[in-house]
Amino acid sequence: MSKKLQLLRNLMKSGSLTKGKVVNAYLLPRTDPHDSEYISAPYERVKYISGFSGSNAIVLVTNLIALCWTDGRYFDQATQQFEEGWHLMKQGVPESQSTSEWIALNMPKGSVVAFDPLLVSSSTAKELKDKLKGMNIELLPVERNFIDELWKERPEAKATKVRLLGLEYAGESVSTKIGNLRHELKEKKCDSIVLTLLDDVAWLFNIRGADIEYNPVVLSYAFITMDEAYLFIDKKKLPEGYEEHLKGVKVLDYDKVTEIVNEYHSKNKENASHKMWIPSETNYWISSVIAESNAYDANSPVQILKATKNEVELKGMRQAHIRDSAAVIEFLIWLEEELNSGKVLSEKIAMDKLETFRATKDKFVSLSFDTISAVNEHAALPHYKMTENSSLPLKASDVYLVDSGGQYLDGTTDVTRTVVVGDDIKDEFVDLFTQVLIGHIECATAKFPEGILGNRLDSFARHALWDNGYDFGHGTGHSFGSFLNVHEGPGSISIRHNNPDGRLKAGQMMTIEPGYYRTAHWGIRIENCYEIINCNVTSGATNFLTFQPLTLVPIQKKLIKKNMLSAKQVNWLNDYHRVVYDTMSAYFKNHNQEKEMSWLKDACSPL
Amino acid sequence: MSKKLQLLRNLMKSGSLTKGKVVNAYLLPRTDPHDSEYISAPYERVKYISGFSGSNAIVLVTNLIALCWTDGRYFDQATQQFEEGWHLMKQGVPESQSTSEWIALNMPKGSVVAFDPLLVSSSTAKELKDKLKGMNIELLPVERNFIDELWKERPEAKATKVRLLGLEYAGESVSTKIGNLRHELKEKKCDSIVLTLLDDVAWLFNIRGADIEYNPVVLSYAFITMDEAYLFIDKKKLPEGYEEHLKGVKVLDYDKVTEIVNEYHSKNKENASHKMWIPSETNYWISSVIAESNAYDANSPVQILKATKNEVELKGMRQAHIRDSAAVIEFLIWLEEELNSGKVLSEKIAMDKLETFRATKDKFVSLSFDTISAVNEHAALPHYKMTENSSLPLKASDVYLVDSGGQYLDGTTDVTRTVVVGDDIKDEFVDLFTQVLIGHIECATAKFPEGILGNRLDSFARHALWDNGYDFGHGTGHSFGSFLNVHEGPGSISIRHNNPDGRLKAGQMMTIEPGYYRTAHWGIRIENCYEIINCNVTSGATNFLTFQPLTLVPIQKKLIKKNMLSAKQVNWLNDYHRVVYDTMSAYFKNHNQEKEMSWLKDACSPL
Repeated sequence: MSKKLQLLRNLMKSGSLTKGKVVNAYLLPRTDPHDSEYISAPYERVKYISGFSGSNAIVLVTNLIALCWTDGRYFDQATQQFEEGWHLMKQGVPESQSTSEWIALNMPKGSVVAFDPLLVSSSTAKELKDKLKGMNIELLPVERNFIDELWKERPEAKATKVRLLGLEYAGESVSTKIGNLRHELKEKKCDSIVLTLLDDVAWLFNIRGADIEYNPVVLSYAFITMDEAYLFIDKKKLPEGYEEHLKGVKVLDYDKVTEIVNEYHSKNKENASHKMWIPSETNYWISSVIAESNAYDANSPVQILKATKNEVELKGMRQAHIRDSAAVIEFLIWLEEELNSGKVLSEKIAMDKLETFRATKDKFVSLSFDTISAVNEHAALPHYKMTENSSLPLKASDVYLVDSGGQYLDGTTDVTRTVVVGDDIKDEFVDLFTQVLIGHIECATAKFPEGILGNRLDSFARHALWDNGYDFGHGTGHSFGSFLNVHEGPGSISIRHNNPDGRLKAGQMMTIEPGYYRTAHWGIRIENCYEIINCNVTSGATNFLTFQPLTLVPIQKKLIKKNMLSAKQVNWLNDYHRVVYDTMSAYFKNHNQEKEMSWLKDACSPL
Repeated sequence: MSKKLQLLRNLMKSGSLTKGKVVNAYLLPRTDPHDSEYISAPYERVKYISGFSGSNAIVLVTNLIALCWTDGRYFDQATQQFEEGWHLMKQGVPESQSTSEWIALNMPKGSVVAFDPLLVSSSTAKELKDKLKGMNIELLPVERNFIDELWKERPEAKATKVRLLGLEYAGESVSTKIGNLRHELKEKKCDSIVLTLLDDVAWLFNIRGADIEYNPVVLSYAFITMDEAYLFIDKKKLPEGYEEHLKGVKVLDYDKVTEIVNEYHSKNKENASHKMWIPSETNYWISSVIAESNAYDANSPVQILKATKNEVELKGMRQAHIRDSAAVIEFLIWLEEELNSGKVLSEKIAMDKLETFRATKDKFVSLSFDTISAVNEHAALPHYKMTENSSLPLKASDVYLVDSGGQYLDGTTDVTRTVVVGDDIKDEFVDLFTQVLIGHIECATAKFPEGILGNRLDSFARHALWDNGYDFGHGTGHSFGSFLNVHEGPGSISIRHNNPDGRLKAGQMMTIEPGYYRTAHWGIRIENCYEIINCNVTSGATNFLTFQPLTLVPIQKKLIKKNMLSAKQVNWLNDYHRVVYDTMSAYFKNHNQEKEMSWLKDACSPL
């Protein structure tokens, strides 16, 4: 058992944060008060206590056992990173048990389960309460976080400047957006809504920040009633001239949110039709202010509004992807040249170089997530995160997987290519690369009825792999924001994320990224960003959709076994490469990049 | 507005069944106290009050409106059958609202919503309570059913003799089954379980009845503790010698169930570890006897136990399907002969004739559901049910869809063929028939990891149709029993039925039945029964599964456009037809049926 676990258990036993009450289990989801997937350094408590750095984790520490739940993306990584005394709980596999089920089946009656009310969402608290009803197990919110008590060098939060996004990027004014949101409230007979998701707030007020690495958001809450719009934020972060941009919006301090929500609630409680939309992800600290009978519990409607991009955003997104693809192409050319000249690079050198190519591009702001620059066995970890000592050398004969993306003022990108520069390539690898590509194409060429959930497309990406007894342990795709989070709800192509709000519509964004991972040897992933568009079908139905590529980076042809592809699949690849060539060579011509033009000609020639 | 609706509303207003309390809405699910899909005549209350006869319906009648929820299978049929004043509420479409959501959004505060506690399951009651919490809407259980008050000629329940199923059919003794069930209880730390699903009870005690048409079950409950096993049933139904078959089982009257459950519960209430498994489908009348804190709420584990057939059941199932396929083949030959000779038949004549072929077969007990014998526009109704006056004439040039099945002592069958006897066939029909066939083959040839839910295979059956802008409004497949219900949980290939217990395993049964329906013109469905088996895969993984056909009836080749099929799809069809020929011609040879052998030779020749 690690020293830190010992200290945490002592703290639980001592009752020093709980007025003397002994705590039998401490529940800790890896998130921040905004249910964020990416979190700033002070919130990395799960990593601090367990060693595991994955983006999805729920930790439960009892006197006897320390459990950490995560999903298929992270099974290997978690096992490798855990400090002594930790046990992996697999999510999304047959026979898996949820945290609440585990508590219900294993904690003795009379137990006290403590948690931080800022980190547990109202929906999770509800599920826990439901499961534990009548079991005589106490769920105890404790405002002081237990980990912070032990974490002597816990970092301070960053306070970054906010950027006001003009109509040339946002495409829609703050007042129009608030108007549309109020319309949604009326539909559900609600008089107000609390917004806690940081990208909801950023989108609604056309503001962007840098409080969280890679996600251009700012720590904030919003509260919208039929008459008022409140933004809760550290005012020091706002730039000059923000009053004009936020005309009609009351700007108050970040931690005033419960006070204002409570005040409004108290004032309206006697009104028979008083109903507040408290999105399911709202933290327990805020949601417990409102009487259950006045709360409307459903996902935030801003997630749906935001998912369908407007014309200005669509144009921007396409342009941002051209620039981003240019950077990736420049990088791939550089990589070939270096490795073919006999140089040995490293994961770190390659990663840094890719960033320098992106940084030269117009409207570039930052990366959109931690680049995965992974050689051979590291590529077998779908979400490999490089550490100081882990960077492997990179040679011409290596399998190299690079998953990266950028934030631009006009869009967000996410692309993965797996390449081998040398010619000594194992036949089995080429076989699997082709199967992954077939999965990608089968998903990308799918036509499907408007309004279905993306999970219904997931198996298309696995069909070829399944036929041969292979599979991959992560979702097939996710939506992404417009100069916002690279993972954005509610749509996805995934079995785990099955949000009923995520009905597919034209104008939404989606990645397609099947893979295959040979543990300890190599990994493959082929990822493009796509725009969902209407398409023509024989039946004449007008509600069928398909995908149109945003990412324009060649897929390495020498890794493809053409005879495994159907004619339709070959056509898709050749059509895709033609579009890549036409669009990107025009870009490079504009920038007088002849080397890139000639490289592209070869890379994009028909299979 | 219909007269019956008027009377129901008067009854609601009068408060005569509710101690004077005015009822603002009456909630009526179409089911019986056992959450049955097929119900006996006295429970056909939804049909009585609304006219709609589909197998899935929830009715809500308020003073102002009469609503009926059902799913895509029944949208057309419901609209056609509704009496005056009824409104269709679509399930499973984007923007659809559940009954509880509708109540929450539309019923004024202070409303009283009455329901029959025998018809509403504990899980539905829970969902309703949850949705309406704090809304000041009363959910009022009323023991006397409102419809029965109006329904003067409500039929009596049948009381049929029970059949004791020996080991030669059941393959497993009652005591072994009860032992396995107790093991499941221990796993979940439960000391007892109530069983209300009729097929659960029939399976556990190896008994079969005929209380419900087509479903060989008997009205009964079971209650199993660690020491006792109770069967609640009308003893008059039991045959002589049942004591030996049910040794160790306490047999009590049908309506003693709450008394015994309550008695056990009261006796054990003080025991800290007392926990009773109350399956989610248990009716409110029983479940409300048990304190919520002592109830374990999850689907019945018998559903999972029963889904995987044992060796004896598997052998029986294969044999039953050979006999059943023989009957269908004999029918198809007869149909060809009759229509080719210029005769005009009818839906009714064909349906009756098919039953006579089945009735001659060894071990035949009854049909397994109402035969769908549908010509042209009737075939466009996926669940067309013939009425006295609806039977259409059937000619050689017609599209004829026949969906039928049998109950045999050793198995249950379900098969659909769509045929055209004549040669004047529309090109568009052949096109769509081929697309449906491709969907069937893509699903039937899928290899997939053990333990996934069947919904992940659903899109394979739609891929070809979607590509052309078509779709069908029902699930792709369902599991079925061994001389039990033709629709059996928990597995399915369906988006709507998404039971997390339905993880696919070798030894389970599944239909595959994609279709396409051209409203008012014609319909297509191609349905086979399959056994799920382990399969070999390149990777060497041992946990991959696929489908092996049970149904052995040729698919009409002249309706297939070969050039639309891939080589793999052509191979599947030819392989399937070879197995049909080999197995069925051996059967017919044994029975000296030479005509059938020669017809088969032609019907099964390679495409």
